[in-house]
Amino acid sequence: MTDDTPNPASKSHGRLSISASFKPRDLMADMRLKGAWTAKIVTLFPDAFPGVLGLSLTGKALDMGLWALETIDLRPFGVGKHRNVDDTPAGGGAGMVLRPDVVGAALDQAAIGTPVERERWPVLYMSPRGKRFDQAMARRLAGAEGMTILCGRFEGVDQRVLDHYGIEEVSVGDFVLTGGEIAAQIVLDATVRLIPQVLGNAASTEDESFSSGLLEYPQYTRPAEWEGREIPAVLTSGHHGEIEKWRRAESEKITRERRPDLWDAHLASLPPEKPKRQRRKADPGTEDA
Amino acid sequence: MTDDTPNPASKSHGRLSISASFKPRDLMADMRLKGAWTAKIVTLFPDAFPGVLGLSLTGKALDMGLWALETIDLRPFGVGKHRNVDDTPAGGGAGMVLRPDVVGAALDQAAIGTPVERERWPVLYMSPRGKRFDQAMARRLAGAEGMTILCGRFEGVDQRVLDHYGIEEVSVGDFVLTGGEIAAQIVLDATVRLIPQVLGNAASTEDESFSSGLLEYPQYTRPAEWEGREIPAVLTSGHHGEIEKWRRAESEKITRERRPDLWDAHLASLPPEKPKRQRRKADPGTEDA
Repeated sequence: MTDDTPNPASKSHGRLSISASFKPRDLMADMRLKGAWTAKIVTLFPDAFPGVLGLSLTGKALDMGLWALETIDLRPFGVGKHRNVDDTPAGGGAGMVLRPDVVGAALDQAAIGTPVERERWPVLYMSPRGKRFDQAMARRLAGAEGMTILCGRFEGVDQRVLDHYGIEEVSVGDFVLTGGEIAAQIVLDATVRLIPQVLGNAASTEDESFSSGLLEYPQYTRPAEWEGREIPAVLTSGHHGEIEKWRRAESEKITRERRPDLWDAHLASLPPEKPKRQRRKADPGTEDA
Repeated sequence: MTDDTPNPASKSHGRLSISASFKPRDLMADMRLKGAWTAKIVTLFPDAFPGVLGLSLTGKALDMGLWALETIDLRPFGVGKHRNVDDTPAGGGAGMVLRPDVVGAALDQAAIGTPVERERWPVLYMSPRGKRFDQAMARRLAGAEGMTILCGRFEGVDQRVLDHYGIEEVSVGDFVLTGGEIAAQIVLDATVRLIPQVLGNAASTEDESFSSGLLEYPQYTRPAEWEGREIPAVLTSGHHGEIEKWRRAESEKITRERRPDLWDAHLASLPPEKPKRQRRKADPGTEDA
């Protein structure tokens, strides 16, 4: 397989895919590098992509070429007549483990035309053993030129391939999935929506949960009364200052009640509190310093 | 809309869907209640389902009728000529909020034929403000008769509908998604694989991360040497006791290094440690008590 022929294991989605089979691969890579943020997904289930990401705003953005998606099917890299991608775990145990040679070959294919520096092009493996994915990681990934995600299946992947390629293990939470595909879509969705112009209304990314370190306040809309329940009066008062104050207080209350860990982190992120009363008595002049 | 006509907003997947349009609805509900664990998904994107869940083991299990999936399209419940499902937030702000009357009507439809007790049939709303989804919650959900998941979009859903229906807010993590559909698939995947017979090899659910409260040990498989890296000798030694000991030690090491929170929880879950040396000296006879 040479670099200037399209790889049957690789499939592009979105605008770049239109001419995918007519351009030499190095030119394609060049287009990509100069172009949109790109995700490459190594998976046994390429049909799972773009999935939900092909709908709604992320789908529109994909069609518009604001980001690009390429799937690399793991199967053709399998060994033997049956293209086996996995084998039994060394030392015994249930399930099957993805082979390092098979995964390595697929990752080599995915790496074509991407920067080698991991900060410019992170390579992720979705695994419950990984670093917890969060909004800060989404921002970091959206700020890179693209990323490659390896989706696991079965009991996991041979540890040597993770070590050899300097792969980041990333977890979406403390639960076990049948495979990494849905987890990869979580990471993609949270990341892609932070790419400029993907969301129609840029303001939407600022107000919401985690952007401020607090959970979002309750929302209400029409009708004004429903099932005997009314919208809180302050929200229909027209007093913007009061509305802001109410929303801030609700955000703080919900965060404190539901997520003491986030609340503590929020308090720690605030500038050191001035012990007002004592300072006011001792030296009122420094209050604004 | 009466209960004995198929609802155009509702679509079934898997084995039950074969006769969905030919049976009276109350008989359908009866079939379901006596039958498989069922997920009902209220969404603006019914085409997103079953998505990845239609592939692999969860897909086979769906085809075999081991679980069932029904999507309830939110759109037909919309108001006015344009079937609007959302409106601007009371008090101002970016984005749109799902209307309580629209969501309520869809939830009423979803509730037909389901038990009213929330422990038998949980109703979830995917939201970053919710309780964190984890393996224990997956076990609880798999032990119910089924569940309904409301997938949000935009800025969220009117708070009154959450209050009125006693909906559990559930979060898959500290990040923001364009919608609840992928989060719902996470919950579904983690839950469905715990339903008896869904995984071919039942042993697989016991060994893995979180089942023991620890992260999983590294896995290796063929080839024995790859890129100059060998499988740890203990795993090919054939000494099962040594292999178990090595794996246990690796699990503990990885958990301690990567997830001090899980490690602390694990330690707390152990039976109170006996102060062996002191006890051995003072009263060796009680060691096995």
